[in-house]
Amino acid sequence: MEQANGIITLTTDFGDADGFVGAMKGVVLSRFSQAHLVDIAHELPRQDVLAAAMVLYRACLQFPRGTVHLAVVDPGVGSDRAGIIAETRDHLFVLPDNGLLTLIARTQNILRIHRLEDPSYRLSEVSNTFHGRDIFAPAAAHAAAGVRPQKFGPELTDPVMVHWPECRQEGYRITGEIVAVDVYGNLTTNIPNSALSNGSWRLQLGEWTLFGPIGTYSEVDVGAPLFLHGSMGWVEIAIREGDAAQKMKVAAGVEVTIERVSH
Amino acid sequence: MEQANGIITLTTDFGDADGFVGAMKGVVLSRFSQAHLVDIAHELPRQDVLAAAMVLYRACLQFPRGTVHLAVVDPGVGSDRAGIIAETRDHLFVLPDNGLLTLIARTQNILRIHRLEDPSYRLSEVSNTFHGRDIFAPAAAHAAAGVRPQKFGPELTDPVMVHWPECRQEGYRITGEIVAVDVYGNLTTNIPNSALSNGSWRLQLGEWTLFGPIGTYSEVDVGAPLFLHGSMGWVEIAIREGDAAQKMKVAAGVEVTIERVSH
Amino acid sequence: MEQANGIITLTTDFGDADGFVGAMKGVVLSRFSQAHLVDIAHELPRQDVLAAAMVLYRACLQFPRGTVHLAVVDPGVGSDRAGIIAETRDHLFVLPDNGLLTLIARTQNILRIHRLEDPSYRLSEVSNTFHGRDIFAPAAAHAAAGVRPQKFGPELTDPVMVHWPECRQEGYRITGEIVAVDVYGNLTTNIPNSALSNGSWRLQLGEWTLFGPIGTYSEVDVGAPLFLHGSMGWVEIAIREGDAAQKMKVAAGVEVTIERVSH
Repeated sequence: MEQANGIITLTTDFGDADGFVGAMKGVVLSRFSQAHLVDIAHELPRQDVLAAAMVLYRACLQFPRGTVHLAVVDPGVGSDRAGIIAETRDHLFVLPDNGLLTLIARTQNILRIHRLEDPSYRLSEVSNTFHGRDIFAPAAAHAAAGVRPQKFGPELTDPVMVHWPECRQEGYRITGEIVAVDVYGNLTTNIPNSALSNGSWRLQLGEWTLFGPIGTYSEVDVGAPLFLHGSMGWVEIAIREGDAAQKMKVAAGVEVTIERVSH
Repeated sequence: MEQANGIITLTTDFGDADGFVGAMKGVVLSRFSQAHLVDIAHELPRQDVLAAAMVLYRACLQFPRGTVHLAVVDPGVGSDRAGIIAETRDHLFVLPDNGLLTLIARTQNILRIHRLEDPSYRLSEVSNTFHGRDIFAPAAAHAAAGVRPQKFGPELTDPVMVHWPECRQEGYRITGEIVAVDVYGNLTTNIPNSALSNGSWRLQLGEWTLFGPIGTYSEVDVGAPLFLHGSMGWVEIAIREGDAAQKMKVAAGVEVTIERVSH
Repeated sequence: MEQANGIITLTTDFGDADGFVGAMKGVVLSRFSQAHLVDIAHELPRQDVLAAAMVLYRACLQFPRGTVHLAVVDPGVGSDRAGIIAETRDHLFVLPDNGLLTLIARTQNILRIHRLEDPSYRLSEVSNTFHGRDIFAPAAAHAAAGVRPQKFGPELTDPVMVHWPECRQEGYRITGEIVAVDVYGNLTTNIPNSALSNGSWRLQLGEWTLFGPIGTYSEVDVGAPLFLHGSMGWVEIAIREGDAAQKMKVAAGVEVTIERVSH
């Protein structure tokens, strides 16, 4: 990343009730008053690293070159998991080394990762329970102000990644699973849109059998189930103007199979 | 609107868990890095256009001249509903043409509305499920950067409006309904404050009979029901330090009658 | 506070569904377009002044010198409770005089408090139900633009404080209580970390007996209860990767005792 643009995004599972995010913002602005803070999301499922990795993948790459992304979903706070700063061609990521980077790392070249160890880029007192405030916020502030990743601490070469359930393709039969459920109850699978680029396909999800992909929600009746090319690059299952997760009683992890029926 | 001031407000039903709003913010800043982003609300009732129209009416008109308001509550995404940019004397509105403008249009002069069709003001690839990111966010960025509404596409002269339930006045008897319930459980009616400018009135809501309007909550006991002039210009029903919607078991759509009992 | 830095933080119990916060932001920017708005938290427990006072204490003091903190949790709106602006060495606070300042005032020197009475720093029409928009937002805007507290109205010398339950220490036995529950279900007590600086202690909370304090969550098994030095300066009780409030069935107000067992 050539030069920081001053933008710092914030992504956490801290919610909007306790002021934890506010404390982090105060620390950032105290260290770098020119920071341009942008909230991405704060109601992530608590301590769910894979869900957070997907949100980072959905949102962060849309930002302009030079943005610093500060993300804290941190079930291991206070343990010996490292705090890190990771650099890609366009962005910096400041976060715990627990797999939050998994989907970014699958799609972007990670140029370098360094540990957040230099005490001059931390608060003078570091608690054992709130590294978002004490370690990650000041590091993001300094990174946005121009401090290079190499200055924060020694290099880390084997970042933690969470298991990403790869879909399996055998001929024209693909077996995948639900990897995310959004606020509308739409279901994201791990099957790439591109796998369904030609022909007609039959999708099986529990007792539900669907044919598609369709082009857009409005091609089916209100209340009808459907699948289509999703906006993140993976096939999505939905109910038009309804909640598929609730109606189909499925959650992340449930198996989906798709088989070609014509071309 | 003479000149954009760089402010872009965001109003959606996207919640704060999935990063959809974050993706939109990234797109805006990638197209117009000077944008001053301001969140209005993101937990709107899912796909409820009338509720969203009321939130826009409550918040947008408070902003300074030159503000661009980006709003996405969009049950028809991917259908043939248009995306539009609407101009009033003071503001621009970038949103789907589905009635979100209803209350703004009832109170402000709409100078012109244009369709969002020019591909240079969209992302290069447009999905069928996330126009907030692919069409509305880039349009808002360009509008805030100074692109005039006429540049986005052909004029649209018959914008969609949602039904606004007008209250009926017969002599000193007014029949209206609950049009919104806020987070405290306070009930907003469609009866203008000004209709109750003189005298004493009896309000009937289901089995509840109330006398008023009172001046302020503190004129009744904690836990007592009341009605008064509301902050949006319509009569509101509340329970002091309580939740009227819950206690009175009412929701939007329930009838309210008010009758004058003295003057 | 020597000079405003243009930052205005916002803390409310208004939620993210109705646009109340958005209306306040619009008013601020209409009066002071250079304002740098920063959300602290908006899902505070409705009308819970002590909980809000703790959030302000957690977040506000992290901000740089010259910040204006706008906070509205206001069960007494429309009554004769005053609206005030309070000044410390580093910050200004604009809020209802109902105890929101309690924890700030316990730890910071309050230099002066003035009533928000001058009509030129209010909206021209003031409702009886939404002083956040009509009184507090414009006052914060003017304060951030450089208007001194003395200009807003007469001095107020006896601000309202809410009861803060002081813990009681008898020898090596301390009796306190739960004062806050955060979004993870972690429990904050009113027992200062410093009271447990030496030795081993036994904590009693209902039927639960815990030994500690431990240094960090990872010293116990996942699912195990623990207590440790908290990030706000008070002892906290938690369950590693679990929800202590739910599992221990406790809420704010429940008694906690801690007794030294060795040194």
